[in-house]
Formats: sequence, structure tokens, C-alpha cells
Amino acid sequence: MNIGIIGGGSIGLLFASYLSEVSMVTIFTRSIEQAREINDNGIFLLGNGQQINISIKAMIIDEWDGKEDLTIVAVKQYQLGSVIREINRSNRHNKNLLFVQNGMGHLKLLSQLNAKNILLGSVEHGANKENPSTVRHNGRGAINLALYRGSKEFLDTVSSMFPSNFSATPQNDYFEMLVNKLIVNAVINPLTAILQVPNGELIKNPFYFTMLKNLFSEISSILNLKNPEEYLQKISNVCKNTANNRSSMLKDLEGGRKTEVDAILGFLLEEAEILSKNAPLITSFNVLVKGKEMERED
Amino acid sequence: MNIGIIGGGSIGLLFASYLSEVSMVTIFTRSIEQAREINDNGIFLLGNGQQINISIKAMIIDEWDGKEDLTIVAVKQYQLGSVIREINRSNRHNKNLLFVQNGMGHLKLLSQLNAKNILLGSVEHGANKENPSTVRHNGRGAINLALYRGSKEFLDTVSSMFPSNFSATPQNDYFEMLVNKLIVNAVINPLTAILQVPNGELIKNPFYFTMLKNLFSEISSILNLKNPEEYLQKISNVCKNTANNRSSMLKDLEGGRKTEVDAILGFLLEEAEILSKNAPLITSFNVLVKGKEMERED
Repeated sequence: MNIGIIGGGSIGLLFASYLSEVSMVTIFTRSIEQAREINDNGIFLLGNGQQINISIKAMIIDEWDGKEDLTIVAVKQYQLGSVIREINRSNRHNKNLLFVQNGMGHLKLLSQLNAKNILLGSVEHGANKENPSTVRHNGRGAINLALYRGSKEFLDTVSSMFPSNFSATPQNDYFEMLVNKLIVNAVINPLTAILQVPNGELIKNPFYFTMLKNLFSEISSILNLKNPEEYLQKISNVCKNTANNRSSMLKDLEGGRKTEVDAILGFLLEEAEILSKNAPLITSFNVLVKGKEMERED
Repeated sequence: MNIGIIGGGSIGLLFASYLSEVSMVTIFTRSIEQAREINDNGIFLLGNGQQINISIKAMIIDEWDGKEDLTIVAVKQYQLGSVIREINRSNRHNKNLLFVQNGMGHLKLLSQLNAKNILLGSVEHGANKENPSTVRHNGRGAINLALYRGSKEFLDTVSSMFPSNFSATPQNDYFEMLVNKLIVNAVINPLTAILQVPNGELIKNPFYFTMLKNLFSEISSILNLKNPEEYLQKISNVCKNTANNRSSMLKDLEGGRKTEVDAILGFLLEEAEILSKNAPLITSFNVLVKGKEMERED
């Protein structure tokens, strides 16, 4: 299987590294400098005290024409609009795409897509891009894949193609799959980003845990969760298992980057509006994170 | 007029420095070390590029017996319980007291007091205690005084006793006077403490200003304010006039000290409960500040 990966961020580099073990991978980056560096030196994958150097072919996004058997779109949700315009420029109708964005903000963009098979992914691996050609694999987690449009057979083919040290599990319902991850992200990311604490503090500090439960309760009401206690337990487990990690949103703010708050809390606020439900805490954390983003721009 | 000042914090040292120009002042501190240092070296008052050294008599709080013509109680609200027990131990019934705590949490403690005249003060000066005998006067502001119990004449006598470079204005209604200050504190302090920004950011950053307005709106509803726009304008003016200052609550957290959140947001939450009003944002910021206090204790 020939695989294209659009996006040279941490997740793009991580997928390129692992999938190159089982497939022919081309990575498409935004900048010509990054493509050149990867072509010259390969990608360096760090983790478990090891450094592995992997040869990968790199091109810039403009050069992508959809001829791969599968293209994994690994840009941030807020960069997706321009990438989708790029994808629609290709006249091929048999394009096969996999989107691995966080949150659910990207769902409304997918209906416009000209493609045969569209898969969605939920990625729980932790990765950090240390420089344009180096990615650190911080934490191992699951990859779940589900069908958004196309054939179930294609979902199974792609899922089974992933190597055993970076496996993917097919899921039946993409909405449920994304909601599961969204809830965890919507609670842990904004709280850790505003409080500037590692994930574990949210359950260790009883006041922060009260805040966590209050925010979760609002989210649970908007999503009309049938089994909130199970979700709350799942969130607590993630905090416990990643106690020393800094969440992606906190790292984005610390690195002066835009966060994925629109894809996460923005989606929930749109849902709340549709249902005419009040969401004072989600509204507050959405505004606070956007304020922090702006602070970094000063 | 003989004046006693209970409390060797920033406000106690500031009052001692200025009032010693017009009165005989004794400062009563918690620790014997601080009393000794002030007796040996006096108080150093910094500000306007000047350093003034003032001789002041210091004793420890246990030695206070209420024989001064006026005792100013300048401890934090959360230390007030033990100080009031101390005050009630003195058998004199002609004690005259002035309380200058932030917030309104201290009001419920005053009814138990054995005293002739009780004044309340609202202090808008900015001061920072740099060491046990040194206080920096950061920002000039108003001092307002009002009668809680006793004679109007005593209020006027005390107000007119303050020196012209540290003047005090008598007010008619202590509740209104304290509410005015509480509203400003309840908005600016928790927001700056959690966001870790100077006061000016709250109006400069449009997202933070949205948060400020939402929090104010909840406070306004609990206090049933008749003219919310005026109060909002006042808060904005304080942010503008003290743009580079770090609020007392932020400084308390940065210094690893307990904050006055109970006196400020705690009072509002009690009011909300009496009125059966929801206060999700006040509840949240109360919990977040208490979480930050606990973080510092780790």
C-alpha cells in the first residue's frame, strides 16, 4: 500500500516513521525547508532511550495529487480548511483519506470532500516534534479507526495494515469513537492549559478535581451521556496514567502556538447552542484559552 | 491621639509609617522577632524613589490591652478570629477599633465584639512588605472610613486625624462602602490570580475582558446592583489605572501565601446561597484559587 501523509507535525512524523516499516510512505509538508531536511536526513524517531533514523520521501503539500492508496491527513483542525481545498483540487474520484484530527470540529468540513473512502482516526499516542525532522514518541496509546464514508472492507484493510508496534483497531461508530476522545480532551486540556499543571494535578488536588467534575457535568449534559460515571472514571484514569505529562493544549500555549480549542470546546458550544442549553463553564474556559493564545501573540 | 496597630503586614506597616507623623503609634505584631526588629531599626518606608526611616514602638499582639484611643486592626480576614478573641480578653469597654480588612467576610465577626466605637475602612493604597520592617508604597489610592457602631463624631475625629498625604474620607454607609470595594476585588483579584497577568491585561485582552464581564454580571445579579454599568466602568478604570500592578491575590499566590478568597468570593457565595441564586463562575474561580493555594503547599 502506498501511503501519503499530509502534515509534518508531531503526529505526521510519528505515523510516517511507524508506517514506513510496512508501506511506501511519502510525507507532504507545508514548508519546502522541512521537505528538504527530511529528504536529506530522514526522520529521527526518539523513544525508549533509542534513536532510529528512517529514510522517507518528502514533498510539499502542493505536490500532492491523491494517487496514493491512502492519504492520512495529519494537520491541525484549524489548518484543515486549506488542506481540504487542496484535496478537492485533485480530479481523482477514487481518493482514500484518513483524518486523525482531535475534537469533532472537522466533521462539518468532510461533507464537502470529493473522495471514495473516508476514514476517521482517534490517536492516543503522545508525540512531540523536537525539530522539523525529529519526533519523540512520549507515550504509547491506542489508535482507533472508523468509517465515515465508503466500504467497511477498506476500513479493515487499513486497520490490519498498521504494524504490531503501532496497531490500529477498527470501530463501528465514528461519532461514538470521537465523542469518547473529545470528552477526555474537553476536560483535561482546558483545565491543565489554564492552570498550567501536569495532568495528574487534576485528580491529586481536590479543588481542581471539583472543578473537573463541574466542567464534566456540563459536557455530560450537552452530550446527553447515558453513563456519565463511566466517562468520569475514564477521565480520572487518563489523568492518573499520564500524571506527569503536560497536555497538548498546555504545550501549545507554552510553545506560543494556536491550540485546538475550537475543535474541542467550540464544537461543544455549537452543540449547546443547537440544544439551547447553558454552558457557562465551557464558555468560560473557551474564552480563557483564547485569551491565553492572544497573550502569547503579544 | 494614641494609636495601636494590630498586624505587621504591608497595610499595618504602611499605616504605622504615615500615622506616626500625626500620632503616637504602637504596632503590635504576631512574632517577637518582627517587634524586636522594628524597635531596633524602625520601619523603612519606600516609595517615589525615597526611603524614609521612622522610629516606631513595637510590641507583640499578646501585650495589647486596648488602652489606645484607637486601635487599627490590620490583619488578614482569615486571621481575624484569633485577634477578636484577643480583643475580647481586654476588659475595657471603651475600646475604639478600626477594621481595614478586604472583602466583607469579617462583618459577621464584629457583632461579637466588646467595644465602644467600631469603624470600618476600605483601603485602596497598594503596598508591599519587602521584609519585616520594610514596606513599599506602590500605588496611592483612597482611604474611606465608615461607622459600624458608636458615634458619628468619633468617625469624623478619626477621619480628620489622618495626615494630608495619607488622607481618609468619612462615608455614610459602611455596607455600600465595602460593597464598592468588594466588587472591584471580586472581579480583578481572582481573574488576575488564575491567569497570572497584571491588572491591565483584563481590559487589554478582549477575551479576558469578556470573561471579566461575565463574572461581573454574576456578581451584579447576586448583589442586585441598581447601576451595573457604573460599576463595570469603575472596574475598567481600576484595571487601566493599575495596569502594570499585580493584584494582591496574585502576589499572595506567587509568594506561597493564603489569599483572601474567602473574604471576597466566599462572601458572595454565601449571599448567593441565601438568595438561592446559581453562581457557576464565582464557584469556579473560588475553587480554582483554592486549588492554586493548595498547589503552593506541595
